[in-house]
Amino acid sequence: MMNNKQIILKHYVEGYPKESDMEFKNNNIKLNVQEGSNVVVLMNLYLSCDPYMRSRMKNLEDSYVESFTPGYPITGCGVAKVLKSGDSNFQEGDLVWGMIGWEEYSIVTPTQSYLFKIHDKNVPLSYYTGILGMPGITAYVGFYEVCSPKKGETVFVSAASGAVGQLVGQFAKMLGCYVIGSAGTKQKVDMLKSKFGFDEAFNYKEEQDLDAALKRYFSDGIDIYFDNVGGKMFDAVLLNMKLHGRIAMCGMISQYNLKKTEGVHNLLCLIAKRICMKGFIVSDHFHLYPKYIEMIIPQIKGGNMVYVEDIAEGLENAPKALVGLFYGRNVGKQVVMVSRE
Amino acid sequence: MMNNKQIILKHYVEGYPKESDMEFKNNNIKLNVQEGSNVVVLMNLYLSCDPYMRSRMKNLEDSYVESFTPGYPITGCGVAKVLKSGDSNFQEGDLVWGMIGWEEYSIVTPTQSYLFKIHDKNVPLSYYTGILGMPGITAYVGFYEVCSPKKGETVFVSAASGAVGQLVGQFAKMLGCYVIGSAGTKQKVDMLKSKFGFDEAFNYKEEQDLDAALKRYFSDGIDIYFDNVGGKMFDAVLLNMKLHGRIAMCGMISQYNLKKTEGVHNLLCLIAKRICMKGFIVSDHFHLYPKYIEMIIPQIKGGNMVYVEDIAEGLENAPKALVGLFYGRNVGKQVVMVSRE
Repeated sequence: MMNNKQIILKHYVEGYPKESDMEFKNNNIKLNVQEGSNVVVLMNLYLSCDPYMRSRMKNLEDSYVESFTPGYPITGCGVAKVLKSGDSNFQEGDLVWGMIGWEEYSIVTPTQSYLFKIHDKNVPLSYYTGILGMPGITAYVGFYEVCSPKKGETVFVSAASGAVGQLVGQFAKMLGCYVIGSAGTKQKVDMLKSKFGFDEAFNYKEEQDLDAALKRYFSDGIDIYFDNVGGKMFDAVLLNMKLHGRIAMCGMISQYNLKKTEGVHNLLCLIAKRICMKGFIVSDHFHLYPKYIEMIIPQIKGGNMVYVEDIAEGLENAPKALVGLFYGRNVGKQVVMVSRE
Repeated sequence: MMNNKQIILKHYVEGYPKESDMEFKNNNIKLNVQEGSNVVVLMNLYLSCDPYMRSRMKNLEDSYVESFTPGYPITGCGVAKVLKSGDSNFQEGDLVWGMIGWEEYSIVTPTQSYLFKIHDKNVPLSYYTGILGMPGITAYVGFYEVCSPKKGETVFVSAASGAVGQLVGQFAKMLGCYVIGSAGTKQKVDMLKSKFGFDEAFNYKEEQDLDAALKRYFSDGIDIYFDNVGGKMFDAVLLNMKLHGRIAMCGMISQYNLKKTEGVHNLLCLIAKRICMKGFIVSDHFHLYPKYIEMIIPQIKGGNMVYVEDIAEGLENAPKALVGLFYGRNVGKQVVMVSRE
């Protein structure tokens, strides 16, 4: 029997989440695998804070994700070390990433938790919550599969310094696109240009008129919009799309905390401009993960791809880190370090 | 020199168009082709009233269609007879359809007017404004190319008794889909079921809650939505789409007369349900017209496809017919008969 610190969701959340919606609690856990069980016992190392987790704080019916259960630990993507295993695919000492609890130790069923074994350890392990994990494959699938990009096209990325956006921008540059990103602070805007190689970037909070801002950067329009925010930005982008443009709908962080989402008014542009707009969910595409890893790891090691993380130290700081995401306090991918290997 | 009665757009229009926005006027026309010119002189037979024409009554900048010019005749699709021709592809006596003026005689350049020669005359000539013309190829491309339909799928069509909707419903039934349509009167709803073979139909004006209405008819959700209306119906459909559903955005008749379009709030469903939504413009697909005609004419002659038209007699009644479209007064495809062959 071990002591197991946990982050508990106290109740369903309305509006912006607060740290007080969560509770840091001590529980006990038995770190063993019963005879015949296929669970694995994990020591958790890094947790991922992702915008979609906001949806799970609501009482969802009929959604693609399940609600968190009030009174129980929050769950999310994370990196962990296998302590004991009832599944022959995983051995004691293996490093893995997948859906784990916000706690020191978790006991999970590998298939239910989408558990992937980590083969390459010559990269920061925390990357498996980001560029080498769910946000990585999200950016890869969303850009290459959903957007059908071609060299020379113009690409706009919102929330561009975030876990997914910074990757989409770099993929687009690698392909020879003209790439602009938006973010919410001067520091992030600078980072987009100096660190990730975006051609231009702007602070959407400083723009009175998003349509005018987009017209300033895309005088001939946008071929590809990778949408991470929804709402007003999405509506302004519709006015600036080129004929036969493509929109990947990855998430809508600007809408998750609203009681009623903002209305989008410019959908008629989709007809006039023959736009194709697609929503996608990364878990449908996890079979591409091995192909992605094979492509991306050499790019990281060769210095062609960079990744910026914002690491909060200690499980007790996880609620603050998660809440901060919705105020744009993170600079780069928000991670929580639970324990070093 | 001949007398040429015309329907003139008096000024740009705000809100719902009125008959008084147009003027029935006598003008003169010289029915000849100057040496070296490639124009053709047409005697107009049938005119098509189509919802997209509302957009052209505005002062449009940067649109896929051109504004009408106040002081000049309205233009639109129509059927005509060639009186004189400076283009070797067209001979005196040929019947054609394409973009013509709302007038007794028009002089057009065949390529600019998308002029198609009519080969099969053993069908009502007015059909070349509908099932054998622009709405026909719209329904064909929108359903088969944009929606990627499969046998057994569930299909919802709005404005289902209109020029395009009645065809989409019949195409879907031919393929073995389960098809529901919405329309705005009991007569139209009855026609959808008894005439066009829709599995079910409902009067959207009698529904307090469109979401509930859709749930009544699609207990397992909608695979394909062919959208002709936009607005509230579109928003309600988003809540009822199935995973991996497809939406063809053909037009938004509910929005054309509004100063500010209604806000759409349920776009997050596109992500959760991995929806693909595409706008399209029929003129991009005119190269498929010969293939379409080859398919559809035997279906008409064999009685497998039916088409309902609402024919206004006489050019002087064209403004009333066009205005009526936006109040749903037409039952079936709205046509104006200018002259019998």
